[in-house]
Amino acid sequence: MRQHRVGGHTIVFSHPPRILSTASVVGPKEGRGPMGSLFDHVLEDALCGQQSYEQSEHAIFQEACERCLQKAKISRDQVQALLGGDLLNQIMAASLAARELAIPFLGLYGACSTMAESLILASILVDGGYASPVLCAAGSHYCTAERQYRFPLEYGNQRTPAAQWTVTGTGACLLGEGDTSLARVTHATIGTVTDLGIRDANNMGAAMAPAAAATLEQHFRDTGRSPDFYDCVVTGDLGRVGSDILHQLMADRGLPLPDGLHMDCGLTIFDPNDDVHAGGSGCGCSASILSAYILPRLREGKWKRVLFMATGALLSPTTSQQGETIPGIAHAAALEGGN
Amino acid sequence: MRQHRVGGHTIVFSHPPRILSTASVVGPKEGRGPMGSLFDHVLEDALCGQQSYEQSEHAIFQEACERCLQKAKISRDQVQALLGGDLLNQIMAASLAARELAIPFLGLYGACSTMAESLILASILVDGGYASPVLCAAGSHYCTAERQYRFPLEYGNQRTPAAQWTVTGTGACLLGEGDTSLARVTHATIGTVTDLGIRDANNMGAAMAPAAAATLEQHFRDTGRSPDFYDCVVTGDLGRVGSDILHQLMADRGLPLPDGLHMDCGLTIFDPNDDVHAGGSGCGCSASILSAYILPRLREGKWKRVLFMATGALLSPTTSQQGETIPGIAHAAALEGGN
Repeated sequence: MRQHRVGGHTIVFSHPPRILSTASVVGPKEGRGPMGSLFDHVLEDALCGQQSYEQSEHAIFQEACERCLQKAKISRDQVQALLGGDLLNQIMAASLAARELAIPFLGLYGACSTMAESLILASILVDGGYASPVLCAAGSHYCTAERQYRFPLEYGNQRTPAAQWTVTGTGACLLGEGDTSLARVTHATIGTVTDLGIRDANNMGAAMAPAAAATLEQHFRDTGRSPDFYDCVVTGDLGRVGSDILHQLMADRGLPLPDGLHMDCGLTIFDPNDDVHAGGSGCGCSASILSAYILPRLREGKWKRVLFMATGALLSPTTSQQGETIPGIAHAAALEGGN
Repeated sequence: MRQHRVGGHTIVFSHPPRILSTASVVGPKEGRGPMGSLFDHVLEDALCGQQSYEQSEHAIFQEACERCLQKAKISRDQVQALLGGDLLNQIMAASLAARELAIPFLGLYGACSTMAESLILASILVDGGYASPVLCAAGSHYCTAERQYRFPLEYGNQRTPAAQWTVTGTGACLLGEGDTSLARVTHATIGTVTDLGIRDANNMGAAMAPAAAATLEQHFRDTGRSPDFYDCVVTGDLGRVGSDILHQLMADRGLPLPDGLHMDCGLTIFDPNDDVHAGGSGCGCSASILSAYILPRLREGKWKRVLFMATGALLSPTTSQQGETIPGIAHAAALEGGN
């Protein structure tokens, strides 16, 4: 039996899968943010020409996948698997996009960690020779997430300082073999569900930070690497509150994150003056920033090594109403630029 | 690069992963059915000692996982990954069970196809040497599914003849290497989302049957096998309506399923006189029958080769209300008994 493990929870790829192409489609608010010019398509309005926000979420997911394939000059029928998910109940945006794309589909749900989860499973499929190329994607939509998880938009409720703004957008990556690529996936650390007892569905950063710290520590222990091995440690959507807690937790564990090393996609995607409180969230947040900013920097050689870790808060309105705490999960993928 | 493909959508395992142990926990109605004596634990009531049906679903999921590990004499911290899901919004039963089990977790959503999806991905992890042993599980609960997808139980609505009864139960399997096993997973066919335009959320059998036929045809084409290669072709929860449609579709494709070859878990789990209309459904249906009936028959040599195909209807109340049709998906895993 071939071994692809280093340490407890970390996989090392013997033929590091290549990210052949990537694409992002986001909403207008994301387009107004500091990364606005980097996305492949910024929608003029969040409905994306559809009749409902849910249909818009599906259309955005599908468009990101299609653009990703176009950039790689690969047709749908050449793709051997699509892995991904979203935040809608029953991951309907991804499922309906998979219907239109007609690619063999494995639906995933990891809340806002979905992009890392799909990247890891897609890498396993490619590295092991089970499928190639493989498309992976994750998306979210502010207008559907608010009404599904919190309140109808029309209610106009006041948001707490720790609240985050769900990103409207999808990021997609095509993994496979090839001579040129944006980056290679070299390692993957699968996260364990971690719960420190947060009950406030408007403070997901705090709910996710302990999982982020646990996965980071596990990754460094398994690989023997220290934080400064990487040019950037990317978290998905911890936001301001969660990022501060992560830094404290890592310092407590003797693995402080050096100044400037950590980037949180949720603190990067929006203009901080655009009423987003603690930052961005949603599985489209890390997925679209991975696509628009992180992978291009790896391809251009501005970064050589990045640890991409998306974090998810595992809650539903029902569990919140029943008094459950909010556990978190974080999965990490190590990316290296060049060929 | 190693190749593990035969044909378009089918994976062949070079080191067929072994199912080392399995366990099932079901509700009282399932216990009254013809398979009642075969489950590891039949609950006395559907609340499972909890305060809510959602908490019960979580407890059942967790107990099936724990029993599966106990039967293999393997502790939680030896398990390198847990893959699975359920029908609750945000797959909260699986997520909360993963928190308690503290096993690295990859959440999946494939509606009622989840047991096949998790079995396939777990097999890839084990065959490729990425993780071993790996636990996979899928569960559902009648009382949570009814109120989430259809009506509150208290409403007491009349059910249509095509309606199916969601199984309360979870089935779990531990995959890994070992000298003895219940069965080996030799092939996997990943399904494509298929939609023939059904809009009736009370007729999921009809919505899923086209996906089942598509995956079966794909599997036979990819492998060069014909239906009678298998001692049994198992479908998840097509029920009476969906099973009849599947037989018609397979006959139309020139691949008729011989008499007695096909078994649908949804037509097997309940006493047909127990008010279940077109049969059982839910991802716990195929998962618990796989565990309680199919794997023991393979171990005992009563069957040598089985194609296990779970089918999922990809819908949510929101998509139904917005007029979407109900696409289906089906994933198939080929199982062989003996060592």
